[in-house]
Amino acid sequence: MSTRITPRLYNGTRDFLPAEMLAREELLATMRRSFQLYGFAPVETPAMEYLEILLGKYGEDEKLIYKLDYRNDEAARRLALRYDHTVPLARLIGMHSDLPLPFKRYQFQPVWRADRPQPRQGRFREFWQCDIDTVGSESRLADAEILAAAAEMLTALELPDYRIRVNHRRLLTTLIRWAGYPVQREGAVCGAIDKLEKIGREGVLKELAGLPAEGGDGEKLLDLLDRGADWSTLERLSELDSGDGAAETALAELEELHRLCLGLGVPEEHLRLDLHLARGLSYYTGPIFETVIPSLPHMGSVMGGGRYDELIGLYLGRSMPATGLTMGLDRILAAMAQLGREHTRTTPAVVWITRGFAETDEAAVALAGRLRGAGIPCELSLEQGKLKKQFSAANRKGIPLVITLGPDEAAAGKVTLKDMQSGSQESLDEAGLLERLQAAL
Amino acid sequence: MSTRITPRLYNGTRDFLPAEMLAREELLATMRRSFQLYGFAPVETPAMEYLEILLGKYGEDEKLIYKLDYRNDEAARRLALRYDHTVPLARLIGMHSDLPLPFKRYQFQPVWRADRPQPRQGRFREFWQCDIDTVGSESRLADAEILAAAAEMLTALELPDYRIRVNHRRLLTTLIRWAGYPVQREGAVCGAIDKLEKIGREGVLKELAGLPAEGGDGEKLLDLLDRGADWSTLERLSELDSGDGAAETALAELEELHRLCLGLGVPEEHLRLDLHLARGLSYYTGPIFETVIPSLPHMGSVMGGGRYDELIGLYLGRSMPATGLTMGLDRILAAMAQLGREHTRTTPAVVWITRGFAETDEAAVALAGRLRGAGIPCELSLEQGKLKKQFSAANRKGIPLVITLGPDEAAAGKVTLKDMQSGSQESLDEAGLLERLQAAL
Repeated sequence: MSTRITPRLYNGTRDFLPAEMLAREELLATMRRSFQLYGFAPVETPAMEYLEILLGKYGEDEKLIYKLDYRNDEAARRLALRYDHTVPLARLIGMHSDLPLPFKRYQFQPVWRADRPQPRQGRFREFWQCDIDTVGSESRLADAEILAAAAEMLTALELPDYRIRVNHRRLLTTLIRWAGYPVQREGAVCGAIDKLEKIGREGVLKELAGLPAEGGDGEKLLDLLDRGADWSTLERLSELDSGDGAAETALAELEELHRLCLGLGVPEEHLRLDLHLARGLSYYTGPIFETVIPSLPHMGSVMGGGRYDELIGLYLGRSMPATGLTMGLDRILAAMAQLGREHTRTTPAVVWITRGFAETDEAAVALAGRLRGAGIPCELSLEQGKLKKQFSAANRKGIPLVITLGPDEAAAGKVTLKDMQSGSQESLDEAGLLERLQAAL
Repeated sequence: MSTRITPRLYNGTRDFLPAEMLAREELLATMRRSFQLYGFAPVETPAMEYLEILLGKYGEDEKLIYKLDYRNDEAARRLALRYDHTVPLARLIGMHSDLPLPFKRYQFQPVWRADRPQPRQGRFREFWQCDIDTVGSESRLADAEILAAAAEMLTALELPDYRIRVNHRRLLTTLIRWAGYPVQREGAVCGAIDKLEKIGREGVLKELAGLPAEGGDGEKLLDLLDRGADWSTLERLSELDSGDGAAETALAELEELHRLCLGLGVPEEHLRLDLHLARGLSYYTGPIFETVIPSLPHMGSVMGGGRYDELIGLYLGRSMPATGLTMGLDRILAAMAQLGREHTRTTPAVVWITRGFAETDEAAVALAGRLRGAGIPCELSLEQGKLKKQFSAANRKGIPLVITLGPDEAAAGKVTLKDMQSGSQESLDEAGLLERLQAAL
């Protein structure tokens, strides 16, 4: 054998072993079911995109894009790895002009960011993002269905303690201008507000005071935002006049969004107006949303999104409304684990069949074939040898039930089934065995 | 709006739109179910591996590895994209010494190869490989379960016309030496035999004649290989003496593998001994396998694999037996399509709810919520407007049923359900509607 190659992983990337993968596969299946109920259909895009497609969309985070360097092909020098799913969706819509609109899609794939990895804070260089978006509708119902589909998924995951926070980008900018900030500071002010939960009121005021604000009043702004704690705020804000009708439109849109969400069955207690919600990305043009788990305050948001009516036009050459939501798979799994909703299987098999007797070995192999034929996931011991060793192999794998089929059992037309948790044993004929195993699935 | 960015894709990569994705998701779900029945558990590895992990494994194809070029991070200059799942599995086993052995895993992920794309021949630069492998067992049952799990999957996919071809690398090398070829020509001779289906007997003879073979007899070799058309060949080959016992061991292993496959329930007619089977990769050390669809002779193999007892040791520092199979998702989907097993849905929704009447709009929205609550995937028209336009939108999406709920229907406590295929309409109350939709799922 030649010299050993030291096996190692690039920092910020992970192997997913069976226990974690089974949880991830179950979560993705639940997400698929929830989003398909709302008519969202799956889409996937390539890992590699032309760099020119991605540049100019992510602000200063652009430096986190992974570039490719393939020397045999000039084109590859201008390639990069997928950074999110929104820009590839915009590129896809630009290329497939025959797609029936409105187009509703979900997309579950990894993305790559050359960030400083902080595994304990859940920050990785490769991670899965799960997006739902509706392209080609200005309707408020399109926004409402995004939120209702997210609520459907959170309910299906038995995460009952979630809160969807809603705001409107144009309402927020009106409030910012009402507090005296000039239009060119809106981005910086939004950025400061976005940090409220992280750095607190004093921190935000300090950051706002540092801006060359020409008359902006941070105290007044935060007081205004504090008024938006529930939906009745909208009525109280109707005094608001942005001069151009933008604030009135935003208020009406939020009211309609609220009404439609309730109509679609989103439970009222999960839906909150929150004027503090800013969302970092600059491309939002309408309602914006974020979901938190109040009992996990340190988790941050588990999903976020909003309406972005101007991004897709960059690739299409004509204006195209769109709205959507991005979910972080790692964060949802972490939330489920912290709330005790964790998936605990480490193997798909519910039963292990031992092979300890030459006389009945053929019968044990055939039994495995029949159990699988009946839809029972089972592991057949690959080695023949001491039963004790085989039992401990089943135990190490976390398989809850073990079958022994020796000459005594074979003579009686039975098998012995051991429950590894309780240690109890039963002698069962095949009908009884199947019934017992089906119940254990 | 700024200048339009021309939307385009890197040659050899693809967007997967809903119709294709729904077929892919269904195929992957069937594969998962089949492999879980045999106790295989899911694993995923990162897209990025250190280049040193991948180098020296793929022969001259090494030039097809995509390298990364990330300038802010020295490490990333030595990174490359996943080329297959076998080398990452070996690296993973080397890193996770606590994994209970034997370790049985499935892995469904894309791989990247900087090849010349030939989309019509199904050759892409990004494509999904689906692997199953068992690591840590020398048992013939481990090989048999790989084949039985593959047979399970092909049966579940209703591809009844498949043939698993089996050979043994050490039997083949003995036959090559028996025909007079020196040991250092085995690789080249295997390479020539591997092309038999592509270039025919005369082509192979010509290629063999071109080797500096010092006494090798191509006619004799092909005559020998032609004897291996069925399992009874094994008996007739028992005269074979490789001098070192290798041929006898290989014959006994093939007999045991055949017996165990039948014991596990693999139908006899699908399992063929084929001494011509060579498999290109040099790392195989025992039984080798390949699956073809005889009614699709131009398709080539849809899966291939074998035992490779020496690869994982390179990363582990000690010897570690392994056996497995690689499936190409594109080729299996192409085979299914050619055999009329194609999935034809273009959307997950089975029903479209129109919104054409202001008076009943709220009722239409609420109906969507109730249908989804009952597990019926449905699309609610996002726009209110002419019913004709909404019907044609449903039709363009391929949704088979359309609900109308106007004032007349509301007054009667009914909805109108139209079957888009037949054009027939029914007036149904909600219980009748649910029954009708559940049947359409």
